[in-house]
Amino acid sequence: MDIRKTGEFGFIDYIRSCFNPPEGVLGIGDDCAILPCGQGELIYSTDMLMEGVHFLRNAASPEDIGWKSLAVNLSDIAAMGGTPEATFLSIALPKDAQGEWAERFISGYTELSNMFNVPLLGGDTTSSLRDISINVGIIGRAPLGKSIRRSGAMEGHGIYVTGRLGDSAAGLQAILNRWDRTPEIDSLIESHIRPVPRIHEGQVLMKTGLVGAMMDISDGIASDLRHILKASGVGAEVHLDRVPLSDNFKKTCIDYNLDPYTLAVGGGEDYQLLFTAPEGIEDILDFSVYKIGEIVAGSSLKWMVHGTAADYDIKGFNHF
Amino acid sequence: MDIRKTGEFGFIDYIRSCFNPPEGVLGIGDDCAILPCGQGELIYSTDMLMEGVHFLRNAASPEDIGWKSLAVNLSDIAAMGGTPEATFLSIALPKDAQGEWAERFISGYTELSNMFNVPLLGGDTTSSLRDISINVGIIGRAPLGKSIRRSGAMEGHGIYVTGRLGDSAAGLQAILNRWDRTPEIDSLIESHIRPVPRIHEGQVLMKTGLVGAMMDISDGIASDLRHILKASGVGAEVHLDRVPLSDNFKKTCIDYNLDPYTLAVGGGEDYQLLFTAPEGIEDILDFSVYKIGEIVAGSSLKWMVHGTAADYDIKGFNHF
Repeated sequence: MDIRKTGEFGFIDYIRSCFNPPEGVLGIGDDCAILPCGQGELIYSTDMLMEGVHFLRNAASPEDIGWKSLAVNLSDIAAMGGTPEATFLSIALPKDAQGEWAERFISGYTELSNMFNVPLLGGDTTSSLRDISINVGIIGRAPLGKSIRRSGAMEGHGIYVTGRLGDSAAGLQAILNRWDRTPEIDSLIESHIRPVPRIHEGQVLMKTGLVGAMMDISDGIASDLRHILKASGVGAEVHLDRVPLSDNFKKTCIDYNLDPYTLAVGGGEDYQLLFTAPEGIEDILDFSVYKIGEIVAGSSLKWMVHGTAADYDIKGFNHF
Repeated sequence: MDIRKTGEFGFIDYIRSCFNPPEGVLGIGDDCAILPCGQGELIYSTDMLMEGVHFLRNAASPEDIGWKSLAVNLSDIAAMGGTPEATFLSIALPKDAQGEWAERFISGYTELSNMFNVPLLGGDTTSSLRDISINVGIIGRAPLGKSIRRSGAMEGHGIYVTGRLGDSAAGLQAILNRWDRTPEIDSLIESHIRPVPRIHEGQVLMKTGLVGAMMDISDGIASDLRHILKASGVGAEVHLDRVPLSDNFKKTCIDYNLDPYTLAVGGGEDYQLLFTAPEGIEDILDFSVYKIGEIVAGSSLKWMVHGTAADYDIKGFNHF
């Protein structure tokens, strides 16, 4: 498949051949996709990835970029406790990405689509003067009134995460600073370029009926938790020494003289879930969660280390 | 509003202040927007606009680009006979577009949103290294089973358009070749940069129950009609001398020595509707439509002039 030979419509036909829309759904090929209304409530999210800002063509394979473009959107559906139903891909390609690059990108996108059984139902393809631009839109569904928002955190709730933080941020450092590749460094890079959205975990947490607020960790909890606090009108104390870190991450921070707390809570792109719930929720789940703090009165986010207020000024990622 | 001062979240707050989500809908500010499922069927489309490919910053105002980014998506909803319900805007901005440009872009987007009473419910904002990239996703609705697809054209149907073709293509030529600005040229340029999506016309046509196939004219009917023919397994004869042209357009073609037929059917971006229906449909509509040809057996598109086959080889726009 080479768009410079097949043209736009050949490329679209190629993408269409990679996906089977479910019964009763109209996918790629008309002015709009058509979906049944169904039951419950619809949830929708979209994310844009720009070359040079979100990825570097010489540092990530096209398959990895295809995977990640979809993963960050699936993660938003996971963050509401929803089930993904369909995705829509817009992609602008400069001349030198219209051949093998495009086909390999679609391959990575398809691989993750298949893992969660979510069809691509439409999109847009166009050329670009210079940089690759990718936008994914995603439609999901949750039982009526059950999508978990950011605004439901309550005083007394524990603050939890679904997995270890910081591996992705360390992997990004490894890419940007061209650290020597070892199996440990490769594993951190893998966390950065192939995040697995926590769809199952989000659905289970939604079904408990116990979760107050939830979101996915994209900019680092230093930023993301503040959104929950603002939306819910509460404050938080987070125990940095209880943030779960992988051995690999801890060793790498020592090797490269990095502060593990700053990287783990300020680095972002973990795509784990951050949620608040009454203590004890960990006992009824079929996966591990880690309590890292408590929701308290007020509006501020306090960092604690070994039970004492710590003088940390950590900011999450800002896209501008 | 200057994103370089307010940051990403200040920009998002600014956009949010421009829109009021309807009752029962969760708009900007969470991981996903939440919409009721409602009745009928959902229709979804998305379009990407790249600086240097779809628009030039020095040739169109930010307001015009904001308007057009939304217009091309509304036009896809019109092409199904649907009603638009919500839009989602992703925008990547280089440093020199993060101040006044961004605010003026949102102003043009909001103006058209208000005209059709469609709220912006979510999106993504990010920086870009060089070029502006814009993606709009749109959700609409139609009565169950009533969305008009491209595949329903039948032998014996007339081929119709909802308005004059070519003004937009001539306007683009005026911009690219820096023609002297006169009121006539300005009017052509206006058609190019401020297309009005045919939402009302699409809905009325859908409700007649008579329309076989429909789409909006984005790449020129030379390309667009071929999609209908391919999807429906039919052929067509189009009478070039019956394609409706404005006096302004005809005069400009003479002044600049352009072939009016080639420009009107090959130029694109008219955002009128192209549809097939039994003859006589024009008598029951509250707006003008123009019959330009007939659906016939076979699979080819034949151009006719004054009742005789014409030796025209007109291609529509290809994005690669």
